[in-house]
Amino acid sequence: MSQPKFKQLERAYGFDEVSLVPGDVTINPDQTDISFNLRNLTFSIPILAAAMDAVVDPSFAVKFNKLGGLAVLNLEGIQTRYENADEIMECIVQTPENKITSLLQKIYAEPIKENLISERIRAIKQAGAICAVSVTPQNAKTLALVAKDAGIDLLVAQSTVTTTRHISKSYRGLILSELCQTMSLPVIVGNCCSYSAALELMRTGIDGILVGVGPGAACTTREVLGVGVPQITATIECAAARETYFQESGKYVAVITDGGIHTGGDLCKAFAAGADAVMIGSPLAQAEGAPGRGYHWGMSHSHSALPRGTRVKVGTIASLEQILFGPSSVTNGTQNLAGALRTSMGVCGARNIKEMHKVKMIIAPAIKTEGKYFQITQHVP
Amino acid sequence: MSQPKFKQLERAYGFDEVSLVPGDVTINPDQTDISFNLRNLTFSIPILAAAMDAVVDPSFAVKFNKLGGLAVLNLEGIQTRYENADEIMECIVQTPENKITSLLQKIYAEPIKENLISERIRAIKQAGAICAVSVTPQNAKTLALVAKDAGIDLLVAQSTVTTTRHISKSYRGLILSELCQTMSLPVIVGNCCSYSAALELMRTGIDGILVGVGPGAACTTREVLGVGVPQITATIECAAARETYFQESGKYVAVITDGGIHTGGDLCKAFAAGADAVMIGSPLAQAEGAPGRGYHWGMSHSHSALPRGTRVKVGTIASLEQILFGPSSVTNGTQNLAGALRTSMGVCGARNIKEMHKVKMIIAPAIKTEGKYFQITQHVP
Amino acid sequence: MSQPKFKQLERAYGFDEVSLVPGDVTINPDQTDISFNLRNLTFSIPILAAAMDAVVDPSFAVKFNKLGGLAVLNLEGIQTRYENADEIMECIVQTPENKITSLLQKIYAEPIKENLISERIRAIKQAGAICAVSVTPQNAKTLALVAKDAGIDLLVAQSTVTTTRHISKSYRGLILSELCQTMSLPVIVGNCCSYSAALELMRTGIDGILVGVGPGAACTTREVLGVGVPQITATIECAAARETYFQESGKYVAVITDGGIHTGGDLCKAFAAGADAVMIGSPLAQAEGAPGRGYHWGMSHSHSALPRGTRVKVGTIASLEQILFGPSSVTNGTQNLAGALRTSMGVCGARNIKEMHKVKMIIAPAIKTEGKYFQITQHVP
Amino acid sequence: MSQPKFKQLERAYGFDEVSLVPGDVTINPDQTDISFNLRNLTFSIPILAAAMDAVVDPSFAVKFNKLGGLAVLNLEGIQTRYENADEIMECIVQTPENKITSLLQKIYAEPIKENLISERIRAIKQAGAICAVSVTPQNAKTLALVAKDAGIDLLVAQSTVTTTRHISKSYRGLILSELCQTMSLPVIVGNCCSYSAALELMRTGIDGILVGVGPGAACTTREVLGVGVPQITATIECAAARETYFQESGKYVAVITDGGIHTGGDLCKAFAAGADAVMIGSPLAQAEGAPGRGYHWGMSHSHSALPRGTRVKVGTIASLEQILFGPSSVTNGTQNLAGALRTSMGVCGARNIKEMHKVKMIIAPAIKTEGKYFQITQHVP
Repeated sequence: MSQPKFKQLERAYGFDEVSLVPGDVTINPDQTDISFNLRNLTFSIPILAAAMDAVVDPSFAVKFNKLGGLAVLNLEGIQTRYENADEIMECIVQTPENKITSLLQKIYAEPIKENLISERIRAIKQAGAICAVSVTPQNAKTLALVAKDAGIDLLVAQSTVTTTRHISKSYRGLILSELCQTMSLPVIVGNCCSYSAALELMRTGIDGILVGVGPGAACTTREVLGVGVPQITATIECAAARETYFQESGKYVAVITDGGIHTGGDLCKAFAAGADAVMIGSPLAQAEGAPGRGYHWGMSHSHSALPRGTRVKVGTIASLEQILFGPSSVTNGTQNLAGALRTSMGVCGARNIKEMHKVKMIIAPAIKTEGKYFQITQHVP
Repeated sequence: MSQPKFKQLERAYGFDEVSLVPGDVTINPDQTDISFNLRNLTFSIPILAAAMDAVVDPSFAVKFNKLGGLAVLNLEGIQTRYENADEIMECIVQTPENKITSLLQKIYAEPIKENLISERIRAIKQAGAICAVSVTPQNAKTLALVAKDAGIDLLVAQSTVTTTRHISKSYRGLILSELCQTMSLPVIVGNCCSYSAALELMRTGIDGILVGVGPGAACTTREVLGVGVPQITATIECAAARETYFQESGKYVAVITDGGIHTGGDLCKAFAAGADAVMIGSPLAQAEGAPGRGYHWGMSHSHSALPRGTRVKVGTIASLEQILFGPSSVTNGTQNLAGALRTSMGVCGARNIKEMHKVKMIIAPAIKTEGKYFQITQHVP
Repeated sequence: MSQPKFKQLERAYGFDEVSLVPGDVTINPDQTDISFNLRNLTFSIPILAAAMDAVVDPSFAVKFNKLGGLAVLNLEGIQTRYENADEIMECIVQTPENKITSLLQKIYAEPIKENLISERIRAIKQAGAICAVSVTPQNAKTLALVAKDAGIDLLVAQSTVTTTRHISKSYRGLILSELCQTMSLPVIVGNCCSYSAALELMRTGIDGILVGVGPGAACTTREVLGVGVPQITATIECAAARETYFQESGKYVAVITDGGIHTGGDLCKAFAAGADAVMIGSPLAQAEGAPGRGYHWGMSHSHSALPRGTRVKVGTIASLEQILFGPSSVTNGTQNLAGALRTSMGVCGARNIKEMHKVKMIIAPAIKTEGKYFQITQHVP
Repeated sequence: MSQPKFKQLERAYGFDEVSLVPGDVTINPDQTDISFNLRNLTFSIPILAAAMDAVVDPSFAVKFNKLGGLAVLNLEGIQTRYENADEIMECIVQTPENKITSLLQKIYAEPIKENLISERIRAIKQAGAICAVSVTPQNAKTLALVAKDAGIDLLVAQSTVTTTRHISKSYRGLILSELCQTMSLPVIVGNCCSYSAALELMRTGIDGILVGVGPGAACTTREVLGVGVPQITATIECAAARETYFQESGKYVAVITDGGIHTGGDLCKAFAAGADAVMIGSPLAQAEGAPGRGYHWGMSHSHSALPRGTRVKVGTIASLEQILFGPSSVTNGTQNLAGALRTSMGVCGARNIKEMHKVKMIIAPAIKTEGKYFQITQHVP
């Protein structure tokens, strides 16, 4: 009789389940280097602003890019569907909860206009900022060339899960190697969450990879499809692919953790797991002047955390400068993200991001205990 | 001195503790095949409607079967005890909470009528639908023949735990191999949750096995008897038995995960754990036109999740078509179950259910974190 | 340089973390044997009523023992300190919350009277019941002889932790082997929770061992002293000691799991972990006619779950017969404990307690999931 | 192709996840020795009062030290910045929640005065108590000598993470070996949480090490920086370093667990993990006469649990004598800490702290279960 074969399961970990261990050396935060390189481009902070309408519009992109990060404008959102994008945004914010789903569905049914693509890109370039835009793989071939002509510096091709091999009857899958050659610009592709899929993507010639599929428990990808890999494990997997690919090719592809980062602590852990940069959305939607005006919503039906039709109130908590560089008026880790990274690296003895990759990480679930004995409250002014 | 021998315990996993990993290939959902075969029968969706009074009555059975699934009518419920079943159902729904326990006990004390068995089955057959019915092992010998004569296509013999060997003084245990030969119809037996018990059942000649004993924490089997195996592990065990039995006999017995499935995510995970089909109850009791009219209750004292006397309000959330095929108006995974399965298979690169069995599954507990920073609410129209 | 040596920790498990797996054979509940033997004594149900004032008084002892179990009367409680014990009990129940601590401390400061010991024991014996009493190890030498003279059938020597070797300046530790010889009655000793300590105790000639030190999280032993072993692991350890001792001596010492059992599920798991019997308190304090009148409180400052001074309202939920034998009017496992054990054994294919010891147990944490989709409520009449 | 290399993670444990196992021998609490030695100094209880303004002022230090413990006065707090420290404390306590952050920031901006350092130290010495003070590594060279001249007995050099090698541009790192030689007094350094970092610190000639970086989940180090090691694992690591260093040098460096201890249970577990003493803050801030008057707040922006600007109300629960030695009026483990340690050691069979290091510890998460069946409430007079 044959031996029974049971399906094997391995444990995966998310931000809340791990923690970093201080080093044997400590470094003053001002002695750490947190810059991020992507081919010819250098950013003073390793943070990308997510390509979502409530996070990035042209003026936010300019401001964010000038502060040292990289904002990505969604080429399939309100900015490229509506001339009067600001009015549309205002309308979304003013609409009551019980009418928002149908409103959002209607708004995103409007066709994308090529002239608006060019217009939005030029607005960013004319302000002297680096311009990055995102497209879905289905629309990449048409929209990417329009965007290139308009002068973008970097292209992001992003969907919930992107692979090099897509089986479809209705359209021929995007050939990433062709896209990279056609664009002759840095190309970031995602999302992805396993070693093997990441390695295949890297071999197409891309410059960066977005990591994160259904990372959180609140994520609808996980609830609806049962699919998702917690971000620490996903980042560790893709970082291992980066090392393998670097050894076989000599090319270093940036690993960018995208999704599930809410605090400085989450962000620091992403780097220790192997990220070269992170992409964040809701922490930036909370900035004064963010296009979402204190709200946040999804870009597509399949968006993992916020499917189209879901609008959440994130609130406006501080200026963008404060969120990125402090000073922090709260202790919950939502402000001074760059400062938190520098301090964490200092405490862990990492002089730069590559040394941060080697910091010891432990499994240490965040169990609430303090509140049992007395309540820690905090006044948020 | 002898070495001490300590009882060994192995870890088992449930739906909420695991997650699926996207594949290296992705497939357009419309290119996936989710059909389910059981001997000579083919179903376009691999979903069985549970043999419970609040879920399946003849008209629901017809509708569900025509939509591609397989509804199982309980031959020991209200439909076969009362001519005026609809009035009884209405009465259950109208009765206040404090009188429901005694009412249900009284209602189910009424004897089963053979003429009603025939009548209900013929109603389904005359509407042109496939007809499946369930009996308990104790009553199988008498009721199954009546049902066969009335024209059923498939028999389910189901109790909380069914084994090939039952020790009893009062009645001679059901011999499953005899039942299969007598019926000469597809026979599904359950419930079961371990490799060894499943293998023994398969060897009797059955066509399908129901997997699930005390799967959930809210399940009274677990609370009252201490007995229960979480569904992912139970399905993995029974799927391994299916492979062993297939190798020794060449016959492929369908593994049907029954119980604990509430969302598309749960359903997708059941298939990735090895299920060929799933049996669901409460998600269908929430359909417009479900016999329970927004309520759900147990069929017997020993029913694992809902012992007789317990009635729960599940609400009516959408049409049956929407629950099975969408469009979904919510993002919590309770609508568009077939669509969720196709999309999940697409993301995981599985062209059919057998490929879905091979998708990588990880242990990734669903820890609530999102809500810490801002509240995600959703308007349900 | 020497290799660093880190303290090693092993995982221990409690009731809520495990579950039982149905067997390959099933048995009708009425075919199971749940009797419990202790030397010359046989009990038809393997349940001991805890030696606590709110659980056992002479009349409860008589009733419980006649129903087939073994009630243990505390010889250092209200019954042996007060002639008018009933009045004292009534007074405890009537006292408001803010005066209960000082009242209880005052009540238990009253000296124990030898004449009351005799009186209470004779009351039980004259009613034709088996009489078991408990003493603390400190008082064993004096009180046990009085009790023996009064006609007890069984002695329990119990403290939070009892070992064969106790280091003390103020009194010479109790020599258990001497106690066993002096009494020439069945002797049960406890509590204990590890293999080595249990084995040492067994070697003194005792007949039963009480298992359980700080079993629950709410247990103050755990909170105050950091000490405690969850009951599944504790029972597995002591059951292994029983087997070792049986092999070396041929004597079978009963393992009695004491503490943390609240439901039929907990009780069934204790037997599957290796218990020959269980001792329960709060489930019985909830019976009509229990001396605590719906309240429960601790016997000593060091009582693990209920230190003296803590009074909890447990409520009166059903008759003692219903709690032990059903019918159950609820589905939360607090009624029909003997029936639950028989049914669980039937489902697991165990004909008697010794076969129940061999039932497969898995680690399957009780995660609440059901409530996410609809609320399961239940009317308690 | 090279084999992929995935980052490895080890599991770490905190107080709430472990428990102690009773021994095979038990000891009367009054036979246990809980004294703590640090070079030439002996303390009758192994407890240090944390160097925080709400915990230790000169009069509290005198009282605490006379009760047998070791209170550490913060040389960079209110006592050394303000002549009228009591008025400042009163002002902090009286200030409403919405003005406390800015007030605390302003108060701690006042310069430290050398004459006040001398004055506070002399007040303690003149009362006949042992005097210990703390400084940060940055200020150690200047402040430590002033303190030494004023007559201190012991110096603590403490920051969130202290290592032997600190990389900084702005100031030359503190050379600990020089500090130890200059002071020729017992020197305690911290904080630290890993084997390697602890071993390096021990090799500089220090006498004690403070263990604890971001120990709790509520700890802001963990939330903001992603850094932290749960205290059981941190203590086990540092205790292993102590043994390694003892074998290589013959010198025994005291391991002092600092942070996250709220109950007697936590405290007992710290010793079983390898601590020679513990440092506690909030349990002492709850004492009558504590300088914080029922409040507690952080000393610096980087303080792990309470960053400057956060004030919490801890309440005043009992006298200092009761908190240390009982009698306890509650059962939640917050009173009679020394008594709890003695009782725990007795139950575990440890005659002294070094034997307590060898007590068996298990992983046994504190799952709340009791409350499911009835509510345990407690009247706090």
